[in-house]
Amino acid sequence: MRIPVAFFSLIALFTNGATAQQASPALSEAAAIQDLALASRILANEGVLDAYGHVSIRHPSDPSRYLMARSLPPALITPADILAFDLVSKPVTPTDKRLFTERYIHGAIYQARPDVKAIVHSHSPTVIPFGVSDVKLRPVFHLGAFLYGGVPVFEIGDFNKEGEMLVRNAALGEALAKTLGDKIVVLMRGHGNVVVGASLHQAVFRAIYTEVNAKLQATAIGLGGTVRYLSDIEGDNVTNRQPGNIERAWALWKARMKPQ
Amino acid sequence: MRIPVAFFSLIALFTNGATAQQASPALSEAAAIQDLALASRILANEGVLDAYGHVSIRHPSDPSRYLMARSLPPALITPADILAFDLVSKPVTPTDKRLFTERYIHGAIYQARPDVKAIVHSHSPTVIPFGVSDVKLRPVFHLGAFLYGGVPVFEIGDFNKEGEMLVRNAALGEALAKTLGDKIVVLMRGHGNVVVGASLHQAVFRAIYTEVNAKLQATAIGLGGTVRYLSDIEGDNVTNRQPGNIERAWALWKARMKPQ
Amino acid sequence: MRIPVAFFSLIALFTNGATAQQASPALSEAAAIQDLALASRILANEGVLDAYGHVSIRHPSDPSRYLMARSLPPALITPADILAFDLVSKPVTPTDKRLFTERYIHGAIYQARPDVKAIVHSHSPTVIPFGVSDVKLRPVFHLGAFLYGGVPVFEIGDFNKEGEMLVRNAALGEALAKTLGDKIVVLMRGHGNVVVGASLHQAVFRAIYTEVNAKLQATAIGLGGTVRYLSDIEGDNVTNRQPGNIERAWALWKARMKPQ
Amino acid sequence: MRIPVAFFSLIALFTNGATAQQASPALSEAAAIQDLALASRILANEGVLDAYGHVSIRHPSDPSRYLMARSLPPALITPADILAFDLVSKPVTPTDKRLFTERYIHGAIYQARPDVKAIVHSHSPTVIPFGVSDVKLRPVFHLGAFLYGGVPVFEIGDFNKEGEMLVRNAALGEALAKTLGDKIVVLMRGHGNVVVGASLHQAVFRAIYTEVNAKLQATAIGLGGTVRYLSDIEGDNVTNRQPGNIERAWALWKARMKPQ
Repeated sequence: MRIPVAFFSLIALFTNGATAQQASPALSEAAAIQDLALASRILANEGVLDAYGHVSIRHPSDPSRYLMARSLPPALITPADILAFDLVSKPVTPTDKRLFTERYIHGAIYQARPDVKAIVHSHSPTVIPFGVSDVKLRPVFHLGAFLYGGVPVFEIGDFNKEGEMLVRNAALGEALAKTLGDKIVVLMRGHGNVVVGASLHQAVFRAIYTEVNAKLQATAIGLGGTVRYLSDIEGDNVTNRQPGNIERAWALWKARMKPQ
Repeated sequence: MRIPVAFFSLIALFTNGATAQQASPALSEAAAIQDLALASRILANEGVLDAYGHVSIRHPSDPSRYLMARSLPPALITPADILAFDLVSKPVTPTDKRLFTERYIHGAIYQARPDVKAIVHSHSPTVIPFGVSDVKLRPVFHLGAFLYGGVPVFEIGDFNKEGEMLVRNAALGEALAKTLGDKIVVLMRGHGNVVVGASLHQAVFRAIYTEVNAKLQATAIGLGGTVRYLSDIEGDNVTNRQPGNIERAWALWKARMKPQ
Repeated sequence: MRIPVAFFSLIALFTNGATAQQASPALSEAAAIQDLALASRILANEGVLDAYGHVSIRHPSDPSRYLMARSLPPALITPADILAFDLVSKPVTPTDKRLFTERYIHGAIYQARPDVKAIVHSHSPTVIPFGVSDVKLRPVFHLGAFLYGGVPVFEIGDFNKEGEMLVRNAALGEALAKTLGDKIVVLMRGHGNVVVGASLHQAVFRAIYTEVNAKLQATAIGLGGTVRYLSDIEGDNVTNRQPGNIERAWALWKARMKPQ
Repeated sequence: MRIPVAFFSLIALFTNGATAQQASPALSEAAAIQDLALASRILANEGVLDAYGHVSIRHPSDPSRYLMARSLPPALITPADILAFDLVSKPVTPTDKRLFTERYIHGAIYQARPDVKAIVHSHSPTVIPFGVSDVKLRPVFHLGAFLYGGVPVFEIGDFNKEGEMLVRNAALGEALAKTLGDKIVVLMRGHGNVVVGASLHQAVFRAIYTEVNAKLQATAIGLGGTVRYLSDIEGDNVTNRQPGNIERAWALWKARMKPQ
């Protein structure tokens, strides 16, 4: 479904050389939008997103913007639904379309973390319990290694006393980004979690394996014995020096999708 | 599959103006019936209803009636199967079709609670365990916020000493409605649960998220640590002042259905 | 898919009246075979049978025989695979087809229990744990009421000291039938379970709800509190005086099957 | 999809008799490749393999080689993706295709264990928790009998201090093979497991039932009582003297696959 960048490049070859240079970023945006819509549907298909949650990418050529869909169930999102936002989470082009209430999560993290290129906010089911328990989410296997060094929990009640549960404004977005710090995953107590990555595929991979790791950890704890988690050396090695083959997983997830 | 109200309105435009006014309630009933049959199939598709259980709506123009299917597996219900009942759960038009044994649940609650416009009775699988345990069902995340303030448990053995397990008559229906009180969910010990809403979509949403919340809570408890539930302030805020976007979930559930 | 008995009756009308009387049992057998093959596929589709296990019915007109498939995965069984066996589990017509090793379960129970008309032997997944634990399987909700009064566990090690795990002969079949006694379900330690019924649909219903009840009970125990089970009065009432609407569930299970 | 050996034999009949003898091993290789690709897809379809993991067979006519796919998600593997490797896990024919990083698992075990004809390496989900817990994986039912006598756990940290989690070279492969010893299953702490068999179908059967047994055991432990496992006599008897009907399960798994 995704139109390869190569295709657009081919068109560029047959157009005016001078404008091809300018057109290039726009084409790259088109490819990014295709991949983002696919990522949204993959996350729904793999059980990370249900009717809620969202995935975004930093704009490929303008780091002061990010791309995200209008408010829709993630499984139903198509490229036509993707909009551009600035880093205070305002749509770049005014729109009367309904927007995700919690888009501030994305803007605040892109502001605070220049290394982050993609963000997933989800209610993935086995992660929520770790956000309401004093038992910590920890890496039980190599594919969850990126959880090493501790997973912070965002307590929204520290920032709002009126029972607010959603990151509904920029101030709460900033507070969340501060709790995330330099980590990869932040849990949101009584709500869900946020996962970041240096690329869209990496963020999707991490969101899916945060859920898988949570399931494995819950089962391991249920056995009643002592659980051995990955050491920090192991977590660091797998995360930073020997990352797995993300594209192999992406190929499977894409193949699993029913044609749209 | 659902015929939009607009379609019927269009027909009304081309009919006699004087009768159009009268016809309007009947047309609204037709739309309600379409939505009710869809709700039944959605609840089956989402795992809340299996071969048993039922969903009803108060009649859109006559509050002294409610609409519900004849006795059928919820996944197989079509608009043609919907009948009207009065509030003592007698069919408005005599019928020789088999009726749900426990229709008294619906009549009794519609009588006791004028605010209630739709009711789901289910055996949703993770809720039953909370009905037989002294561990209370409580809200673990914002989408289950409506469980705040306590979920009562109906003990049928307090009203029948001969081993009756079903709400088979008006007296048991009244007893159940009294246990529900002004709450949103009532568990039925050794049986299932009942969820009410101010609209059909809200009742369906709550029935589905009662099950989701129960799963999350069971997992959180299984981790063995201390679980932090939503506070009453949080429950109240999300339920009464900042309800979520129910229609986004409804759109997904509808899209997930295989065409009938 | 099931050819209704009425169809065969119609044929009988156009054949010689004298032979119609004789043909009648044979026709009833054909209908029974159709329903038995369907039951096998339903049990596979509902997760009770996997590659192993089997369902049988007592012959509709000759109580000294029973009908069961040759050795095949239950999901793949068609009417052409059904054979007749006598009550020592010998095929009525000699065959070179591979037979189920554990057919002796069926012959022995039909001998010991004239009230039994259908039997399911399965490895249904949540029931096996109760067969290896000293925690007893008990009814947690009305649809599992038939488990009241205790579920016996067959310990094959009491009858064989060489590590036999299968009911591979008539002697072990008899021992199992004795452990079942007058009950509805018997667990087999380290193996699976057997469920009996007064009809095929009832046995299928009970096999499916034995699994469902086991799942609910395991979840209820996992909550960590005290679990209240159905009382014997409740179990007896639901099982013997107010049985549920089995045909409503059968209609759903049949509709759920992909066309063969 | 699998082209039967008989078909190739038929071709051989019409070719030069002298070369037919020589051709025979090559034909057998083709059949083996077909079956191996099918095994890979079956393991994915049954939930043992996800995006990662691999299955191999010893070459049918040359025991100093084994057959395995190039690096691909197991669900997407076709016969064209299968390559031959020697027992130091070097491709027999040089290739620029990406290979599985952990192919050394296979080479090392084929070297150490002449009885082994097929190997599955997986991250099957319920087995991983037993690899990180001090609670041992043990046989709870006859279809998991091959787990009797103890399941060793490979601790990669004993062989590498820099946080390596993958069997990325021959030395780690040998260490793993030594931990496996003469057993059938070895767990890999914080990673997955390896299962071996005397045939492809047996290895697949054992990989699937290792996962099933782990699920049953986790549920049995969760009930909170004492669990009775298969005795060594039972484990030995079922594994070595009365193996189950593996082909019945294979027939089901094959039938369950969507056509490719």
